[in-house]
Amino acid sequence: MNKPGKTAARCVVLLSGGLDSAVCLAQALHDGFEAHAISFDYGQRHKTELLAAARIAKALGAASQTTIGIDLRAIGGSALTSDIEVPKDREESAMSAEIPITYVPARNLVFLSLASGLAEVRGASALYIGVNALDYSGYPDCRPEFIASFSATAALATKAGVEGRPLEIRAPLIAMSKAQIIRHGVSLGVDFSLTHSCYDPIGELACGRCDSCKLRRGGFEAAGVPDTTQYAATSPKRERGSP
Amino acid sequence: MNKPGKTAARCVVLLSGGLDSAVCLAQALHDGFEAHAISFDYGQRHKTELLAAARIAKALGAASQTTIGIDLRAIGGSALTSDIEVPKDREESAMSAEIPITYVPARNLVFLSLASGLAEVRGASALYIGVNALDYSGYPDCRPEFIASFSATAALATKAGVEGRPLEIRAPLIAMSKAQIIRHGVSLGVDFSLTHSCYDPIGELACGRCDSCKLRRGGFEAAGVPDTTQYAATSPKRERGSP
Repeated sequence: MNKPGKTAARCVVLLSGGLDSAVCLAQALHDGFEAHAISFDYGQRHKTELLAAARIAKALGAASQTTIGIDLRAIGGSALTSDIEVPKDREESAMSAEIPITYVPARNLVFLSLASGLAEVRGASALYIGVNALDYSGYPDCRPEFIASFSATAALATKAGVEGRPLEIRAPLIAMSKAQIIRHGVSLGVDFSLTHSCYDPIGELACGRCDSCKLRRGGFEAAGVPDTTQYAATSPKRERGSP
Repeated sequence: MNKPGKTAARCVVLLSGGLDSAVCLAQALHDGFEAHAISFDYGQRHKTELLAAARIAKALGAASQTTIGIDLRAIGGSALTSDIEVPKDREESAMSAEIPITYVPARNLVFLSLASGLAEVRGASALYIGVNALDYSGYPDCRPEFIASFSATAALATKAGVEGRPLEIRAPLIAMSKAQIIRHGVSLGVDFSLTHSCYDPIGELACGRCDSCKLRRGGFEAAGVPDTTQYAATSPKRERGSP
């Protein structure tokens, strides 16, 4: 994206390997940044998303990718980082009404904090995070008020902030629906077959029944974009009795 | 500290193994909390502080100690987590005037974020951090305005905060000098011989010349409390040519 000899402003992009963060990286590059991806190996049961993150970083042209190991299993308290079972086949009304057991305590706070540290070291002026407040599974740390508050805190915590160059936190997807994110990604040339969303994959297959699969599937349907994801369960209702 | 049968309120205490965090843990127990310590194995060159943290947690009577592995070396940018040399024999005026190379980008932000996650899982209502804004080596994330801002952000990021039980961040040492902290620790029964401060230890010995050793040494002198620390260098000036 950036021509040799031209110095682009730098940014850090949180890249999980999911659909949203891929669109976010594409947006950062579209905005003219030299984009440095950061990913987290945090003991998630869907570690396969890290392979997706590496594929996406390479395909879209990130300037670097840093993967940080962090043992969130030592904290536990979530279906994603402990032996608690990932809920399946939840109704959409339940998904937006409560904070689910897949919520990892303070995860986005931890991830943004680490990304702020990397931004400081890389000399980045902006930080992209692909949270969205509409189809967001009910996580408190995906809301705009959290992002705004974090910006203020990071400005006080870091050398760059103290020196008058506070990091700008950008959440370009925050007001988009999953369908809008998918359509926007298509317009930016994102190859969604490289991304991974499932919380509880069965080998290489997405389960098709966790909240994340349901949001992804519903998003492609609503966007009218073909979903090339290989799901183990073709329909949540039909497969209710399967393992 | 807590009698069997009586349910004490819970707190999480950031326990590095240094002098300040030991006093902080003693304060939390003195305040009547069931105290859960959290320590970080973050690739620090002074990993020996983790042994000190374990000794202190046991000696003072923490209810649990959780050590979280987190690879801050992947971020780098600090003398504590990379091959950059730890500065020695700096004058006190220089120590308070600038942010030193031992500053680990966004470290307290990262540590407080992880501690907030543990607090949520443990059902803790308070979080103790032993920062102090006087003898603080010039780190931006040790200032009261940072702590206040973090409290607001954590309340928005966590399930507990959303449910109206925001975590109370307590920084009881924030306005104390190193000498005051030491005297306070003595009054709370802290055995400082268990603690470790040096950034660049030589085997079991403290170097005696890094900022942290200088602050510790000066603090004991000013407090009029005997310093049992084994220093490799007896006087900074005299030892300038030594390895």
